[in-house]
Amino acid sequence: MPEAVLIRDAVPGDWPAIWAFMRVIVHAGETFSWDTDTSERAARDGWFRWHGGARGFTVVAVDGDGTVFGTAECGPNHAAHVASASFMVDPRHAGRGVGRALGEYVMDRARAEGFRAMQFNAVVETNTPAVRLWRSLGMDVLATVPDGFHHPADGYVGLHIMYRRL
Amino acid sequence: MPEAVLIRDAVPGDWPAIWAFMRVIVHAGETFSWDTDTSERAARDGWFRWHGGARGFTVVAVDGDGTVFGTAECGPNHAAHVASASFMVDPRHAGRGVGRALGEYVMDRARAEGFRAMQFNAVVETNTPAVRLWRSLGMDVLATVPDGFHHPADGYVGLHIMYRRL
Repeated sequence: MPEAVLIRDAVPGDWPAIWAFMRVIVHAGETFSWDTDTSERAARDGWFRWHGGARGFTVVAVDGDGTVFGTAECGPNHAAHVASASFMVDPRHAGRGVGRALGEYVMDRARAEGFRAMQFNAVVETNTPAVRLWRSLGMDVLATVPDGFHHPADGYVGLHIMYRRL
Repeated sequence: MPEAVLIRDAVPGDWPAIWAFMRVIVHAGETFSWDTDTSERAARDGWFRWHGGARGFTVVAVDGDGTVFGTAECGPNHAAHVASASFMVDPRHAGRGVGRALGEYVMDRARAEGFRAMQFNAVVETNTPAVRLWRSLGMDVLATVPDGFHHPADGYVGLHIMYRRL
């Protein structure tokens, strides 16, 4: 894990550093079901959609120098009392605990903000590091949408819906 | 069922007739997990979000006089090959087959447009007419989010995730 990783609310000025790795992840199309040609504008509007009053938050994981390692966004899923969240970690910093730090932070903060449960709607079943991480944070697979995701190499694979009470 | 019910693409001029019953349904908060004080602007933007190029469609069910009985919207859920859809029927015309007509139309059209499956993300389990209707159209309960919906009279109830291949 990067030393002294800090998780704080994202500000507009973080966007270029976020997009630098988000574009790589989105364009690869292996873990996120966004269009692989999602525009920077659409990505930014979506990721920062909680700004401006809506209940929810967008955070970044940074080190002491301000380098952005990863990011997460969290807000209401359908109803106001169940949260959902999305996470992206710079692939150059994978396996160093950034995702876990973000996950723990988001669970705690969602609970503190009054959400009663966390639901992830689309966890690609072949993304085993993510599935293992979310399980270790208490998330269970509620259901798997058959062939819910089209992986560029593996073809159609299942999409887990994961859930835990907070 | 209303005589000669026709299902056609919605046009902007349909909005006032849609909102006349949509506001009643949304404000009641018994079947949709939208904020009960959702603004007309937000509702319209959401319901018509497929207009302007995005893959998806919004339709209305009308009779020969042009009276709007119900409406549905359908588009990609997460990935491009799985659709989701939402339906609203004027409560004054409930139980007359408008929902079924809309459901059958949406399934057929989604299939024709290349979607491989249909997924409903939030069917309130106490909304038994809807659950029964969707089951009769081939939708199965993939999972139920525990306490996923807060019903104004019944309190926390489950939220079904329903699914079928197309």
